[in-house]
Amino acid sequence: MLVHTVYFWLTNPDSDDDRQALRAGLETLKSITHFEALYIGKPAETRRPVIDHSYDWSLTYIFKDLAAHDAYQEDPIHVKFVEDCARYWNRVQIYDAEE
Amino acid sequence: MLVHTVYFWLTNPDSDDDRQALRAGLETLKSITHFEALYIGKPAETRRPVIDHSYDWSLTYIFKDLAAHDAYQEDPIHVKFVEDCARYWNRVQIYDAEE
Repeated sequence: MLVHTVYFWLTNPDSDDDRQALRAGLETLKSITHFEALYIGKPAETRRPVIDHSYDWSLTYIFKDLAAHDAYQEDPIHVKFVEDCARYWNRVQIYDAEE
Repeated sequence: MLVHTVYFWLTNPDSDDDRQALRAGLETLKSITHFEALYIGKPAETRRPVIDHSYDWSLTYIFKDLAAHDAYQEDPIHVKFVEDCARYWNRVQIYDAEE
């Protein structure tokens, strides 16, 4: 399995419109079928010095393997999401972990 | 769902013994039953500027809810893991994301 995790920081964190627009964009990714599971999240209420809760939205994908991840990156739905929504974030942080 | 993700950086990344000892410790966590899924990983071969591949091991838990996460934190197997293995890492970074 490959766990592909993406954290997004909004350009305008005070704009609820931008926040919801990015969330709506993330939801469109659920129609892609290359993954085993997909979790869209926001920071939980846990607070410890080692926890980064500064991001606005997160995506956690479980892919069968790297090939499935690569196919997802090129999927038209994913490409359109980036085109439409990249203006909403000013930072993304990605981690790809392979079992 | 709550996605609890932990990235570990080894104190001695050149020590294969330490690397495998931490991995073995992570494996003991699989006997805890509070989670829906658990993925133990290492950096995949993906390389882009937005990807952090500097960590040594990762854990991604899927918990049903925050209560299940809280029970996990107090589970004796988890407590023992931290006691036995904390010496192997010099940095952990945690993200908790709630759907």
